[in-house]
Amino acid sequence: MSAALPPGPYLVLDAGVCEQAGHDPLDVVDAAAHAGLGVVQLRAKDRDVRALLDLTVAAAGRLTRFVGPPALVVDDRVDVVLAARRRGARVDGVHLGQSDLPAVDARRLLGVGTLIGVSAARDEDVDAALRTGVVDYLGAGPVRATPTKPDAADPIGLDGLAEVARRSTLPVVAIGGLTVEDAEPVRLAGAVGMAVVSAVCAHAAPYAAATELVAAWARARSHAASAS
Amino acid sequence: MSAALPPGPYLVLDAGVCEQAGHDPLDVVDAAAHAGLGVVQLRAKDRDVRALLDLTVAAAGRLTRFVGPPALVVDDRVDVVLAARRRGARVDGVHLGQSDLPAVDARRLLGVGTLIGVSAARDEDVDAALRTGVVDYLGAGPVRATPTKPDAADPIGLDGLAEVARRSTLPVVAIGGLTVEDAEPVRLAGAVGMAVVSAVCAHAAPYAAATELVAAWARARSHAASAS
Repeated sequence: MSAALPPGPYLVLDAGVCEQAGHDPLDVVDAAAHAGLGVVQLRAKDRDVRALLDLTVAAAGRLTRFVGPPALVVDDRVDVVLAARRRGARVDGVHLGQSDLPAVDARRLLGVGTLIGVSAARDEDVDAALRTGVVDYLGAGPVRATPTKPDAADPIGLDGLAEVARRSTLPVVAIGGLTVEDAEPVRLAGAVGMAVVSAVCAHAAPYAAATELVAAWARARSHAASAS
Repeated sequence: MSAALPPGPYLVLDAGVCEQAGHDPLDVVDAAAHAGLGVVQLRAKDRDVRALLDLTVAAAGRLTRFVGPPALVVDDRVDVVLAARRRGARVDGVHLGQSDLPAVDARRLLGVGTLIGVSAARDEDVDAALRTGVVDYLGAGPVRATPTKPDAADPIGLDGLAEVARRSTLPVVAIGGLTVEDAEPVRLAGAVGMAVVSAVCAHAAPYAAATELVAAWARARSHAASAS
């Protein structure tokens, strides 16, 4: 492990979902930062890698105006992180799916101090990620089926999430069809973060939605508290 | 420009096309090297980036047994080139489509001495590539429609190829549905290289096909010779 995952709500900012809801993705970046989210992951599955690179550089530019901004993480593409950094952007990490570049290769290219997350749903994914010794957190899901990722695997449910959290010595972020109502069950399942896409990007008021997520997370009972 | 394109036949080794024809892609790498091809570009559009990375490392391993091996180029992915190099593989370059990472960013990440090619069919693609000052060669096409890239743009024909070659101050490699019969018309159109996929990968005898391509290219009249 070489970088610490900020706990709490985690925004997966999907450019296409934002725009379909009438939001400029960069305004959603601002909203997330103002609301105090710990992580913004940039995703642009419906467009090409140039668009993801441009979005990354522009989002990093927006975040320079904040003190203690969210960690900025890029979905999938290690080369986008590297290219954005060469353009002067501050990018904090990358999130890798099971078919993306292996975490060991990503760590070699990105260096220590970069946040590296890996998606893990099955026991063998969890164990493999732990074995690498270079992963900072696991993204566990989908907890529920979600329209923003129609090609995703079968949902693991809150029980599956709890199983990943029990098995993992790394921090676990829940993902997949989650809303503000899920903050407490997700925390009770042992996750230290909760990723949302539509709950912010597709909301009529992203700032209000992000603020409510932060508040709901803060007041929810957690696994650690209930266990002590 | 920072690396020189080896002229002549240029193999685009598509892993899926090789396997459909019953060939291990690594055996086709060997065949290309034995036949004296100047460039082998690795492509695996039907599989994930991990497979492309593994193929790249394995192909580079095969080529260590040759003196003066073909230049090894990876399709699309700058991060695969970087990761393969970190694994100790010798990778010579990358070929970028119009929706891949911009050449300027690729050059910053890959450094001088890396061969960078860009696909260019329209006048504006050619001009944009020339303006960057960091591109080593252009891939012009598709000259003809091709089953190995069904999503490709409309064919530009040999006339379109000649137009790109006239416009470009960089070396031009023709691509798209080309066979051994095209060596002379392609050279007369002003291209210094000819990329093939199926003509080698899907041939029953890849080594024989590659050898015949090298011979046909060598005996074909060229634009330079016919102009002098």
